[in-house]
Amino acid sequence: MQRCLSLLVDLYELTMAECYFRYKKDTQASFDLFVRELPQNRSYLIAAGLEDILNYIRSLSFSNEDIAYLEELKIFSSDFLEFLSTLKFSGDIWAMPEGEGFFPNEPVIRVTAPIIQAQLIESFLLNTINLQTMIASKASRVVQAAGGKAVYDFALRRTHGQDAGIKVARSSYMVGFAGTSNVLAGKIFKIPIAGTMAHSFVMSFKNELDSFLAYSRTFPGKTILLVDTYDVKKAIQNAIQVGLKLKEKGFRLLGIRLDSGDIVSLSKLARKMLNRAGLGYVEIFASGNLDEFRIKDILKSGGCCDSFGVGTHMGSSIDAPALDAIYKLCEVSDENGEFLPTMKLSKGKVTYPGRKQVFRIEDKRGKYIRDVLALEKEKIDDRPLLLKVVDKGKQVYELPSLEEIRKYVLRGLMKFPGPLKEVSAKYRYPVLISPGLKKLIQKLSRRLSRGQC
Amino acid sequence: MQRCLSLLVDLYELTMAECYFRYKKDTQASFDLFVRELPQNRSYLIAAGLEDILNYIRSLSFSNEDIAYLEELKIFSSDFLEFLSTLKFSGDIWAMPEGEGFFPNEPVIRVTAPIIQAQLIESFLLNTINLQTMIASKASRVVQAAGGKAVYDFALRRTHGQDAGIKVARSSYMVGFAGTSNVLAGKIFKIPIAGTMAHSFVMSFKNELDSFLAYSRTFPGKTILLVDTYDVKKAIQNAIQVGLKLKEKGFRLLGIRLDSGDIVSLSKLARKMLNRAGLGYVEIFASGNLDEFRIKDILKSGGCCDSFGVGTHMGSSIDAPALDAIYKLCEVSDENGEFLPTMKLSKGKVTYPGRKQVFRIEDKRGKYIRDVLALEKEKIDDRPLLLKVVDKGKQVYELPSLEEIRKYVLRGLMKFPGPLKEVSAKYRYPVLISPGLKKLIQKLSRRLSRGQC
Repeated sequence: MQRCLSLLVDLYELTMAECYFRYKKDTQASFDLFVRELPQNRSYLIAAGLEDILNYIRSLSFSNEDIAYLEELKIFSSDFLEFLSTLKFSGDIWAMPEGEGFFPNEPVIRVTAPIIQAQLIESFLLNTINLQTMIASKASRVVQAAGGKAVYDFALRRTHGQDAGIKVARSSYMVGFAGTSNVLAGKIFKIPIAGTMAHSFVMSFKNELDSFLAYSRTFPGKTILLVDTYDVKKAIQNAIQVGLKLKEKGFRLLGIRLDSGDIVSLSKLARKMLNRAGLGYVEIFASGNLDEFRIKDILKSGGCCDSFGVGTHMGSSIDAPALDAIYKLCEVSDENGEFLPTMKLSKGKVTYPGRKQVFRIEDKRGKYIRDVLALEKEKIDDRPLLLKVVDKGKQVYELPSLEEIRKYVLRGLMKFPGPLKEVSAKYRYPVLISPGLKKLIQKLSRRLSRGQC
Repeated sequence: MQRCLSLLVDLYELTMAECYFRYKKDTQASFDLFVRELPQNRSYLIAAGLEDILNYIRSLSFSNEDIAYLEELKIFSSDFLEFLSTLKFSGDIWAMPEGEGFFPNEPVIRVTAPIIQAQLIESFLLNTINLQTMIASKASRVVQAAGGKAVYDFALRRTHGQDAGIKVARSSYMVGFAGTSNVLAGKIFKIPIAGTMAHSFVMSFKNELDSFLAYSRTFPGKTILLVDTYDVKKAIQNAIQVGLKLKEKGFRLLGIRLDSGDIVSLSKLARKMLNRAGLGYVEIFASGNLDEFRIKDILKSGGCCDSFGVGTHMGSSIDAPALDAIYKLCEVSDENGEFLPTMKLSKGKVTYPGRKQVFRIEDKRGKYIRDVLALEKEKIDDRPLLLKVVDKGKQVYELPSLEEIRKYVLRGLMKFPGPLKEVSAKYRYPVLISPGLKKLIQKLSRRLSRGQC
């Protein structure tokens, strides 16, 4: 994955960079990466993508080949390209750790750096946070809806490309999925991998029973049989035959999979038939266009499913397939090197000025009750969510393992109010603006509307 | 991009492969890759992704490292892994060329190969076709809505990851976009790249005019000024000042960009002000959550836009963010090596049996009037859409250049009925089933419902 991605930028980052190079080479700036509004059907977001961003920051540099391409474009001056060829990131980055729950207007990442550098990394930061946070947030809802039942990522064939397939596996595992069907992601991130069989497998044999027998003989301790290629009831009878044969030989049939039809009634039927045959341990696995809404309905209606495979809906975040995280200037240095807070006033697109921190307020029992968006220097005696991860270009944050992040997500969600985690997504967690930030906004709004331009 | 992707498979492709290895090593099979239904707001699809698939097929092989990982899993037998370590693709592939318009139930790709191989490539084929065809189809609608005005891909920050960012640039250019903001995609595919400036650029200067002047001095012949950071009307006045200064020096201000607000009225105002100042040649560029519907509305309402930047909506195919292309067995060989057609009967998931071809029927003026889905061996005297691209594992198809595909798409769309290309997407192009295919379906349905299982 980590080929050189320094050219993965929108062209304007580079043209603005040349302009800054000419007119503002020593200007420093701070940018906030944040989300303005919750997407549809979301009451919280889970931060994801920081690991890739730190790898990118570390390896940011333009190769000779990159420079040669930029030269060909006949847009840039040679002194700027020479400058670019030795550029490294030398600024500071503060970020929420991966797995942190967060809300609109809270910076997930804050960059303070020479403005050329801070601007150049925008496209990559947004692309990375937008995908991984979108998926982690969607997948977390699926985990909550499944209420303790195992959920597996089956999305690879419907994710937006290869990179998305791999990141979907990681982001969903991070928030509590039990595993993925994606073998490469399993290898890269040490995620448990899982799978059953396809309809084509059943169809390629003369009859269904033959296909079940062939599979169970090949993987006697690891067989899950797909029972909806032809007639489900007959297929369950076939699965029972296979399950009993395995039992005789000292093996357990792991499960059957339902991939279509009325999952509630079919799973009840399957449970009854399996139990009656003395195969009470055989699990029922459901799949087929599942999402958090359908899983909740299935369980509420008494569906006898032990685990779920979730693909398309989670892997494309189908009800909210773009996150709209943005990256906005919040302060910029003047000729004397002094930082001046700045904000944008255009309609519906206001931004918060200054270098900010997010504080999460707990009650006495350790439950989260609200967040406060404040200026960094304000004294607020609670847990700050933004940690310094890069100091003068050097990574000063030790990346936690994926397993550690996974535990952090699940522990963190326990501390939020119950209604936050409901599938309906109606609850709104309070995020207050600190007195200091409020005052700054008022001051700046007045100054701007008096006519900065 | 082309690191080894052989492990980018769903686990079940590999477990089924071991089963086939044990029980059906010599079995041959054909699979169709197709879409069952048109996604929301689509009346046609544009095939895209074949180039990546042919590259994948060529490089398909399991490295020692891959095999070592699979060994660790303790799922597979050592003789199967040994077999896998020398596996190459040796089958045939028929495919629609990239850029071909197609419809539900028409195979875009047909694979005939030893069943192990045909099954193993499923995940990659689906992942690739799903993304690129989804984007090409969405982007084509945007191009049609813009009716000859230039449209640019600005999606990078909102695509589902890096791979998607690059493929979105290619797929949208393929169907007629004028260029992309994505510099890396520009480099890889030789796509024209484009860009303007960000709000943060304007905000980083003491006032708007200073920012405009700095930019225009750096790129006197290539300046497009963003006019909605503060007050649009004042910004247009500033842009006019800059435009006139450039004019004095013999340069032309290329354009201004509107990124928010009421694009119709603002663009009319801008046009009037620019014309009055003698800057009739300055183009008006619109962006900000645009899609085919908004572009059509803007143009219908007399908006004075010369070109459009389209990001999130196109780059995530936001109204239909998953394509649901599927890969289904349509025939399988018996013990004697004879191919037997097969189909699936489960509710709402019926498939068409046998090795098929798609014929596109033209009228006397060369306009397309319908397609016919037929058995390959049926004699239909029209243009077959599926071409042989791989013969016994060897690529026999010369990939056209992206520019050639782009011309092919635009020429092809001209031949379809006008209503097909309307944004409303209500028209349904006729796809008939040939007599031979109909007969085969009836025969097989009867046999299957008599109880194959």
